[in-house]
Amino acid sequence: MSIINLELKKVVDDSYDIEIGRHLEDTMIQDIKSGLVGKIRRFAVITDSIVNDLYAEPICEKLRQEGYTVSSFVIPEGEKSKTREVKACIEDAMLEAGFRRDCCVINVGGGVVSDLGGFLAGTYGRGVPFLNYSTTLLSAADASVGGKTAVDTKLATNLIGLFNQPKKVYIDLATWETLDKRQLSSGMAETIKHACLGDFEMFEYLESHMEDILSGDAASCEYIAEKNCSIKYKVVMKDERESGLREILNLGHTVGRAIETVSDYRLLHGEALAIGMAAEVRLATKFGTMTQDEADRVIALYEKAGLSTAIPSYIDREELVKKLYTDKKVRDGHLRFVLQKGIGAIDEHVPGEYARPVAEEDAREIIMEMP
Amino acid sequence: MSIINLELKKVVDDSYDIEIGRHLEDTMIQDIKSGLVGKIRRFAVITDSIVNDLYAEPICEKLRQEGYTVSSFVIPEGEKSKTREVKACIEDAMLEAGFRRDCCVINVGGGVVSDLGGFLAGTYGRGVPFLNYSTTLLSAADASVGGKTAVDTKLATNLIGLFNQPKKVYIDLATWETLDKRQLSSGMAETIKHACLGDFEMFEYLESHMEDILSGDAASCEYIAEKNCSIKYKVVMKDERESGLREILNLGHTVGRAIETVSDYRLLHGEALAIGMAAEVRLATKFGTMTQDEADRVIALYEKAGLSTAIPSYIDREELVKKLYTDKKVRDGHLRFVLQKGIGAIDEHVPGEYARPVAEEDAREIIMEMP
Repeated sequence: MSIINLELKKVVDDSYDIEIGRHLEDTMIQDIKSGLVGKIRRFAVITDSIVNDLYAEPICEKLRQEGYTVSSFVIPEGEKSKTREVKACIEDAMLEAGFRRDCCVINVGGGVVSDLGGFLAGTYGRGVPFLNYSTTLLSAADASVGGKTAVDTKLATNLIGLFNQPKKVYIDLATWETLDKRQLSSGMAETIKHACLGDFEMFEYLESHMEDILSGDAASCEYIAEKNCSIKYKVVMKDERESGLREILNLGHTVGRAIETVSDYRLLHGEALAIGMAAEVRLATKFGTMTQDEADRVIALYEKAGLSTAIPSYIDREELVKKLYTDKKVRDGHLRFVLQKGIGAIDEHVPGEYARPVAEEDAREIIMEMP
Repeated sequence: MSIINLELKKVVDDSYDIEIGRHLEDTMIQDIKSGLVGKIRRFAVITDSIVNDLYAEPICEKLRQEGYTVSSFVIPEGEKSKTREVKACIEDAMLEAGFRRDCCVINVGGGVVSDLGGFLAGTYGRGVPFLNYSTTLLSAADASVGGKTAVDTKLATNLIGLFNQPKKVYIDLATWETLDKRQLSSGMAETIKHACLGDFEMFEYLESHMEDILSGDAASCEYIAEKNCSIKYKVVMKDERESGLREILNLGHTVGRAIETVSDYRLLHGEALAIGMAAEVRLATKFGTMTQDEADRVIALYEKAGLSTAIPSYIDREELVKKLYTDKKVRDGHLRFVLQKGIGAIDEHVPGEYARPVAEEDAREIIMEMP
């Protein structure tokens, strides 16, 4: 009998830049020419059926003009495309098109595209580099920082995936102008969440500038894009693997993710999150970590962003309670919620623990009481 | 316009132990009780239809006796189970059974189980820990060191997967006694490859001890298990990501992997590799990196291990040539082969490059000439 010890300690540098600006296509291509992804000449552009004509095709064309080999892979728009099956389809199409390990993936689109494409890049040839070109407010807020990539399954959202960091993220604020009102509001849900968990000043800014943002005011948009990234970065940098602090980004997501699934994705992610946040602040009030006034103020800001915080009538609330158990924070079969401490901070339940166990009856009571 | 730099540099420690011995079930359970995977209480045992009764069920039972929650997931035996679809089935079954991120995967079986299960563990909940309990010579040689996990697709083997390190590997030499002769011979293919690429002394040992090994002599088995791990470790440690040196482990695999696929897995991996090695030494002789005598000696050792080095008559050789292009080493559309330099070393084509471009006609000529 013998034991061999494999010493596999190393320094990993996943650092990258997020560039925020308007019309960043040429900037990205210049970066590629300057060696951002090494000597790679083949690019797989992953995008969705709406973004393709608007942004992905022009990017492909510019890359081709520079002499790169480019294929684009277009998925149907919407959360329903974020599946293992769609990932497999793209993989097969990439294999068919001759892509090997010497390629780079460019995700052009919102969170669905970057979640799926980032996951795919992480497992294609056991990992190829990828870039995110973000075209929605939601992905600017949610998908640019953190390296969380995943697909959904029937039984759970985002449970199959990877931590995988892009080589660079481009947040093109000009693309927000083409978002419809519903998508823009949906994107605000994560932005408000970020303010709630980490920045009271930002929360006040949102209260006073919501109309500016929704109407596309350049300065306000740049402000929130930067704030979103910097708040999330602070959290991610301290805890990349979500063992403790990072769980605070899950604020509102216990109910939010569950209702998104139960709605069968009739609710957009942000719309579901708004309801999840409304549930969370009620729970926080119940547990005494925030006042009724503060909870009302959070709910009011969501409503101001054009997001309903009521549970739609078509949702089976008992099914919703059951679905809470598919949450990633569930531990030893018990529900766990992240709760705000007032506005702009998170309740540290016990030192190093930001999610607290919540009895099913408490969660059910809140869900049943909600409008 | 602004740029945010995300500094994500960190030290990652993926070190782990490989324990080689006989009947290591209790050792593994003791390790788990001692905190090898932290406080985890839930285990998903992944195994195949042959190994389940022999080793996996007894392990599950012992774990249950210690108070752990255990479910087993049994896949059909053989390389054909190494697919995205089988992975998805296990994921769904694990979700259904209530597995969340606080679980550990134990792969009990050969290379198919550890490749699939290691990949699954890497993407389940964005990564849960896993252990490998190796029950075949082939997985002891091939799957214990290196962290390569993957599934096959119709168009390519092992192209979708991850680098993912286990928390510990157990090589149970007693399980080799239950391997049939064909499997044991197949397992020798990687062992001989390791000797060819890195250890002339080991090659001579294999020449003189082949009968002992195939008849299950304890000392010889332990010798080759250790040698396999240590040779592979030397290579992996220097280059975990296969950018340069690690490619030498691909010796024989350009033709080997291709013929395995073209045979539709009628050939076991090791049987395919033996043919691939025979092609490789012929190519090496052609390029002058080894002598005819050395090539003959390698081929003779494969035959001594009970492995045929002739291309089966049912293989379409033109299809085989075409399939070479699905190899991961293909770069800019050109075939690349790793070639031996004599026996026990690899030809360093140019400094830092161990795979050399080979013209299709040269590869075709060898394949057409082979018996």
